[in-house]
Amino acid sequence: MNFKLIFLLLLTTLCRADDGYRLWLKYDLIKDATKRAAYARSAQFIVLNSTNPVLKTAADELQTGLQGLLGKTVPIVANAGGKTGGILLTTSPVAELTNEGYRITGKQNITITGKTDAGVLYGAFALLRHLQTRQSIDRLSLTSNPKIQLRMLNHWDNVDASIERGYAGQSLWKWYELPERIDPRYRDYARANASIGINGTVVNNVNASSRFLTAEYLQKVAALANVFRPYGIKIYLSIYFPAPKTIGKLKTADPLDPEVNQWWVDKANEIYKLIPDFGGFLVKANSEGQPGPQDYGRNHADGANMLAKALAPHNGIVIWRAFVYKADGISDRFKAAYDEFKPLDGQFEKNVIVQVKNGPIDFQPREPFSPIFGTMPQTPLGMEFQITQEYLGHATHLVYEAPLFKECLESDTYAGGRGSTVAKVVDGSLHNYKLTAIAGVANTGSDRNWTGHPLTQANWYAFGRLAWDHTLTSQAIANEWVTMTLTPEPQSVKTVTDLLLKSREIYVNYNTPLGLSRPWTGAHFAPEPWQNRSSRPDWTAVYYHRADSIGLGFDRTVKGSQALAQYRPEVQKQWNNPETCPLPYLLWFHHVPWTQKLNTDRTLWEELCTRFYTGAESVGGMQNEWASVKKDIDPETFANVAGRLATQQKEAIWWRDAWVLYLQEFARQPIPAPFKKPDRTLQEVKELVDIYQLR
Amino acid sequence: MNFKLIFLLLLTTLCRADDGYRLWLKYDLIKDATKRAAYARSAQFIVLNSTNPVLKTAADELQTGLQGLLGKTVPIVANAGGKTGGILLTTSPVAELTNEGYRITGKQNITITGKTDAGVLYGAFALLRHLQTRQSIDRLSLTSNPKIQLRMLNHWDNVDASIERGYAGQSLWKWYELPERIDPRYRDYARANASIGINGTVVNNVNASSRFLTAEYLQKVAALANVFRPYGIKIYLSIYFPAPKTIGKLKTADPLDPEVNQWWVDKANEIYKLIPDFGGFLVKANSEGQPGPQDYGRNHADGANMLAKALAPHNGIVIWRAFVYKADGISDRFKAAYDEFKPLDGQFEKNVIVQVKNGPIDFQPREPFSPIFGTMPQTPLGMEFQITQEYLGHATHLVYEAPLFKECLESDTYAGGRGSTVAKVVDGSLHNYKLTAIAGVANTGSDRNWTGHPLTQANWYAFGRLAWDHTLTSQAIANEWVTMTLTPEPQSVKTVTDLLLKSREIYVNYNTPLGLSRPWTGAHFAPEPWQNRSSRPDWTAVYYHRADSIGLGFDRTVKGSQALAQYRPEVQKQWNNPETCPLPYLLWFHHVPWTQKLNTDRTLWEELCTRFYTGAESVGGMQNEWASVKKDIDPETFANVAGRLATQQKEAIWWRDAWVLYLQEFARQPIPAPFKKPDRTLQEVKELVDIYQLR
Repeated sequence: MNFKLIFLLLLTTLCRADDGYRLWLKYDLIKDATKRAAYARSAQFIVLNSTNPVLKTAADELQTGLQGLLGKTVPIVANAGGKTGGILLTTSPVAELTNEGYRITGKQNITITGKTDAGVLYGAFALLRHLQTRQSIDRLSLTSNPKIQLRMLNHWDNVDASIERGYAGQSLWKWYELPERIDPRYRDYARANASIGINGTVVNNVNASSRFLTAEYLQKVAALANVFRPYGIKIYLSIYFPAPKTIGKLKTADPLDPEVNQWWVDKANEIYKLIPDFGGFLVKANSEGQPGPQDYGRNHADGANMLAKALAPHNGIVIWRAFVYKADGISDRFKAAYDEFKPLDGQFEKNVIVQVKNGPIDFQPREPFSPIFGTMPQTPLGMEFQITQEYLGHATHLVYEAPLFKECLESDTYAGGRGSTVAKVVDGSLHNYKLTAIAGVANTGSDRNWTGHPLTQANWYAFGRLAWDHTLTSQAIANEWVTMTLTPEPQSVKTVTDLLLKSREIYVNYNTPLGLSRPWTGAHFAPEPWQNRSSRPDWTAVYYHRADSIGLGFDRTVKGSQALAQYRPEVQKQWNNPETCPLPYLLWFHHVPWTQKLNTDRTLWEELCTRFYTGAESVGGMQNEWASVKKDIDPETFANVAGRLATQQKEAIWWRDAWVLYLQEFARQPIPAPFKKPDRTLQEVKELVDIYQLR
Repeated sequence: MNFKLIFLLLLTTLCRADDGYRLWLKYDLIKDATKRAAYARSAQFIVLNSTNPVLKTAADELQTGLQGLLGKTVPIVANAGGKTGGILLTTSPVAELTNEGYRITGKQNITITGKTDAGVLYGAFALLRHLQTRQSIDRLSLTSNPKIQLRMLNHWDNVDASIERGYAGQSLWKWYELPERIDPRYRDYARANASIGINGTVVNNVNASSRFLTAEYLQKVAALANVFRPYGIKIYLSIYFPAPKTIGKLKTADPLDPEVNQWWVDKANEIYKLIPDFGGFLVKANSEGQPGPQDYGRNHADGANMLAKALAPHNGIVIWRAFVYKADGISDRFKAAYDEFKPLDGQFEKNVIVQVKNGPIDFQPREPFSPIFGTMPQTPLGMEFQITQEYLGHATHLVYEAPLFKECLESDTYAGGRGSTVAKVVDGSLHNYKLTAIAGVANTGSDRNWTGHPLTQANWYAFGRLAWDHTLTSQAIANEWVTMTLTPEPQSVKTVTDLLLKSREIYVNYNTPLGLSRPWTGAHFAPEPWQNRSSRPDWTAVYYHRADSIGLGFDRTVKGSQALAQYRPEVQKQWNNPETCPLPYLLWFHHVPWTQKLNTDRTLWEELCTRFYTGAESVGGMQNEWASVKKDIDPETFANVAGRLATQQKEAIWWRDAWVLYLQEFARQPIPAPFKKPDRTLQEVKELVDIYQLR
């Protein structure tokens, strides 16, 4: 090895005590000299003959990545000058490519082709990923088109830098510093998103502040947009529906009032003067106390269309959330969104997307798919997943979410017969939507490693990869992420990938098995199945689990809330009958007797205990597997994860004890062998939870 | 230069794009080869013959620092074995040294002597500082003893990771992760504090949560204490006075109730089992709505003594805050602390310290010293300074606080005749206190650079240095900090030092000149001199400035609130008469006619305008001076500060306009030449402020 190489190796070792900041864009030197040389032969120069900012980003990112991986500076030149062994960046109207798609072909030169500049950028990152995962570049031929047009992050970030449901520090956006100071981190945020194909971001909370539409704040938003633009990322804003009153000083925000309409038209013009490629508005209206068109006797379409008309001349879009439920909280909350939106199908403007949460309730550890999917053929339905772990153990519990996302996307709505998956609704292929979108509620924050728990960077990564191509497997994505982020050592990659893949099922087992749910208020992250007081019945725990002397679960059949009727007959058929209803959804749809034998040959009570105990026990297994990869993981990252797993173990037992001790008072049965009864009493668990609600 | 050196130089350049995390402990390689060689000759090895953890820290810190500064690994050995050219660490009962003092002498070997292990640690950091500031080590002879015993940070950090009055991110303490995960940052926090002699830290907000006294949380606190211990730092807790009720389930928290007393005795025993060197309790009671002994008809001494008796067997102390004022808000808030505490002098247990804010109101940009200092000879009075910039422009405005701290410490109370400075009260020399303490409300947070504004790291540093030795000059401290943190280049050191030294006066000029104050609620960081509505009169702006058609200012003479009577006659004599009252305090004590000629030969109105305009203008000057040091400053740091100065410039004009336009309505006079009237109207400024209070 020559001096330079020694130096670079030392450099990598010495100044890269890994604090996780670099995410999956680490680009550490490839240690295998043969492989490094092979790659180097095909990456002697980068050819870019354009001043397009996005193409320039592509070239710069390639250069940065290659500098790290190969330990040499690869020049960017305007033309190959007959030489071979270079990487050519070019846009051309290739038939097989959609707007943002890319094609990578390798002969004497590697050519990255996109129909648009963004396509080339995604191709550049794809090539880097190819090298980061140590794949062969002989006869390189990769073609990929995104299946969904708008691939977005939603940030529930507030003006005071707090993040609603954020567990990784404060907001990335420093509103008090903008526009004068540009935190270098804004650019790194854009890089990470572009590398996985995310092309839009809503920077403020859906429970929105009016401030963002003031001239003062639009300057700040514009400064962010300028940083994101060269990475092909458009900026969007959540709006406060009554803004025409709060900052426009109008008497009303009625969507049918001409003055209100004009106010939004003027505001849109003002925004696009500052941000010519502004994406549009995200709207939470008449939901959880947020004002909206219904306050004026109008409906969601009236509200959305008013905004859509103001944005249309600028090609902006309106993303209107379907997360609504009756304030009365009497009727089954499950049914609210379907009841309010299905009748409006076909009444929305062309530049409106209705954004639907994956499940009918609220980002629970496991939910059946929302019955809206497949029922609004004339209205583009976007998917809203939650990457941040509101109900998944915050930044403490390890839950790799790709399996959760896939489970929903692959669910069959039967809207157009068998195989009409939710994915086909969202990617537009089922109803031939002209607009398609998918959003993830971000888990990013100001923590140095972005996501708090080092391993849940994988959820941000997985969301982006699935937004681009929902046919990728959870395993393939995990494998990529681990290799690029933690270690390229095959055995450890396998171990950590397995750990990720099983993590969600383990969490569900000790947290909400068999279709239990927990959208309760209070400590929110702590077990409170006994929670029965709230300003609304549907904000208590007992509203959902309905435990009584007979059994457990929410009857949503015809004998119950009849929510099941919102699904296609084929779906109803599977889920209507407790005998055939898949166990993961059992208590979502049925009130099952404690003594009922399940197809596991255990009674409900026995099965519940088995899940709670084995789930909690499995965390110990995850700790052991993590311990086994120590030699291949950066020490700081290793210790960080080990510490969080220890806390998860403690809290998993806490959840187990809370549930079994509480439910036992209804089931009135002993803990079945071989499981030992908890060391603590229900009262003791309650006191433990109370500590976390002390002033 | 040999290979290793090239390597190290490259290393420093390449992996030290300076994000400010390393504070003043950067230890970058000394570029001057001659100087480096000279230092190296006297630092060939470190001799430590002890397993004492604090001494081990001293040796390790020396090794780390020398590794960076000299670019070589200096071995730690058990004895010199006759060799010379080493650094010897030793404890011995030297007469000239107090417990934590150190002596550094250099002949064939450099010897660092402390009476205690902590003294050696402080000596080690002193030697490093000596090298960092490039001073000669020939005939080295440094002796230093701390003038104050307890040198503490107070963290107003909450259990939810928010920080009351914090502007640099969230709390450093990750309570949900503790005790299982130890963030490496905890240790770096301890290192930074130990390097400036801070030996105690209160980790939670004075508006305290009961949680910290639960078994669950004490485990977490103990884990932090274990990290701090090897750095000679004791941990303290703020307590919630009614804890015996909230977590002890007692019926009362009456300090004279035997059960309550027993509860605290038991709690103290529980704490010391976990944390043998626990420091003690900090208490905010009967202040701003916090409960306290007065709720039971008892006084502050009753409350403090109950706690003191519980802690005494463990050598713990009680720090009882004097920041109290009548809830009625009718009488002059200025007088409250003096009125409540002076009568209690001599009634406190020996292990109680009464902690007094520097000024009588609340950390204003400029206040006269609190009249309590010098009036309680039998009660140790500790100083409470605020490092975080609650009223000093948060993390946006540059205010170097050493001059503010010094101004108070050097004020003469005349308690024992001329020269009875506040410093002599606090360091115990005036009244011969057996306990002495000084606390700074921390400006640290989770921001990568610890303090948000890169240059206000200097305030943390300056507080620590002054806590150790209040006779150091603001300039000497600034000079040290700039050299160690930003650049050792003399010209730039001088420029930035000057910038720091003038910054506070510039801020006062555009923010609260001539003794104006602004402890108002509302946007809190924004100008609101018009603010006249609040739940209490003394929480409005008009309560303080008292602007009317005649003039401006709060009359605290015999004709007014008579607060001046709380000072010694010699002090009253200077301040009673508006003719002789120093201009900086004028409006603190007098209601002055707009047309009154001041000794500047300008009327009050003219002088006010002059201060507001020249103050705002001076920020432009600071921008220019900062621009002039660009070549010597890390690019990221340079841009960061430049951006904040630009925002400060914008906001300084905002403050100027708000004040002059508002006061003009009372003064009814034009803006005097050469100043131009603001471009905006008062209404426009109000609307700008309102934006920052929009939902």
